[in-house]
Amino acid sequence: MDKRPIGIFDSGVGGLTVVKQVMKVMPHENIVYFGDTARLPYGSKSKEAVTKFSKQNVRFLLTKEVKAIIVACNTASSNSLEELHSAFDVPIFGVVDAGVGEALRSTHNKKIGVIGTAATVRSGAYEKMICKKDGEMQVFSRACPLFVPLAEEGWTDNQVARLAAEKYLEDLLAKGIDSLVLGCTHYPLLKKCIGGIVGDEVKLVDPAKATAKQVKLFLQEKGIVNLEEKAGERTFYLSDYTDMFYSICQKALKQGYDPEIIDIEQF
Amino acid sequence: MDKRPIGIFDSGVGGLTVVKQVMKVMPHENIVYFGDTARLPYGSKSKEAVTKFSKQNVRFLLTKEVKAIIVACNTASSNSLEELHSAFDVPIFGVVDAGVGEALRSTHNKKIGVIGTAATVRSGAYEKMICKKDGEMQVFSRACPLFVPLAEEGWTDNQVARLAAEKYLEDLLAKGIDSLVLGCTHYPLLKKCIGGIVGDEVKLVDPAKATAKQVKLFLQEKGIVNLEEKAGERTFYLSDYTDMFYSICQKALKQGYDPEIIDIEQF
Repeated sequence: MDKRPIGIFDSGVGGLTVVKQVMKVMPHENIVYFGDTARLPYGSKSKEAVTKFSKQNVRFLLTKEVKAIIVACNTASSNSLEELHSAFDVPIFGVVDAGVGEALRSTHNKKIGVIGTAATVRSGAYEKMICKKDGEMQVFSRACPLFVPLAEEGWTDNQVARLAAEKYLEDLLAKGIDSLVLGCTHYPLLKKCIGGIVGDEVKLVDPAKATAKQVKLFLQEKGIVNLEEKAGERTFYLSDYTDMFYSICQKALKQGYDPEIIDIEQF
Repeated sequence: MDKRPIGIFDSGVGGLTVVKQVMKVMPHENIVYFGDTARLPYGSKSKEAVTKFSKQNVRFLLTKEVKAIIVACNTASSNSLEELHSAFDVPIFGVVDAGVGEALRSTHNKKIGVIGTAATVRSGAYEKMICKKDGEMQVFSRACPLFVPLAEEGWTDNQVARLAAEKYLEDLLAKGIDSLVLGCTHYPLLKKCIGGIVGDEVKLVDPAKATAKQVKLFLQEKGIVNLEEKAGERTFYLSDYTDMFYSICQKALKQGYDPEIIDIEQF
């Protein structure tokens, strides 16, 4: 029995789709969320910058006495997870590892597509990890930089979104993928649009879901589950105020919260 | 005669379109450019965050002994220029002021459209300043958050760009504007696409051009022009490495430079 919260950080508010999955599979766990809205997006920045930011985010979450941390941001997961593991003692889970496991389970023809930000795709993290676990896998990646602004604009299934999705996905489809990893926390918000383009034969993999399941298992194995019967408390911190928090919060969590603003550069 | 450089800062690399205009009208002036690529974009962030960042950027440029500073970023201009004027002695020019002057000169029917980032539009800076100078003016604004990622993706005149531009501009066109301010440094890169949608009857106003002319006049009046005959030196600093620098540099300046990376949080 361990009431300490689970810490979740993301470069912004996209990570609320991860909060959603954690709330779904572990409704009694307390959650502390940090969104680095002052420095978002991480997707276009260097490995060095992303790692520096990620370390500050972990140091902030540690002040909240978290028992485990989820790196909800794919860019931070794929660029900084190793450095975080060596720098800190707290158990840290990245969405990429969990997404890879789910992708391996979901493919039948061993052709996996991965879409994400420029930095996630450039890091080759999904590709490397998938091929390390199964050398027969073929991985095809594509950066889709317009998907985040489309999701934030609320243009999740209009003609502009569909046209951009068609343009981004046509090469992957031509390769014959049967599994597509949504390698950015915002992308589940475009699931309907993306699903419409790729069709029913291609399974969409949401790493957030897989991560939540993995963390649940870890807490059970370590005997540090929160056994209280009441719903967990959820606290939200951002490094800068943004209206976007409220709209994505409503879309992802179907309820409103008020974030507290902190100065992340002090950590 | 004053060899000290002109300082120019922007939230990223979009400000290179301002460098282009300064080089064009003042080819002998030395230029120091700073792009805050570690913390871009400013457009989605609060006035407080943008002002804090802007002050750090000015402090950095002052270490380069600049004789004047141009705030190339519309978001920073419209959110922080007053605070910068009270905090620093160096002459500081914002693209918004110059853009307003040019818009007033270019309209005949007194209906002006303004497009920019969410923060620029939310600040109402163009609108307020235009109406202050001429109370009969009608200003219609629209945030176009997809234009920056479109420009960065190199999708400056394809079907996705045209469809997004149509969607963004239809309301402004319905209002009968005859002048449209490109209120974000990236937007001149989409000039052809935007021009194609609005047609020849609507004049596109590029605040970068107007700012360069304004600063030239100021240097002449103060007698601090650089009278050397050789081409000015241009030095580029960024707060984070980005490939985008090279592509936008080629597109805007038609030549390659190598940026130096600095830690802006120390200023």
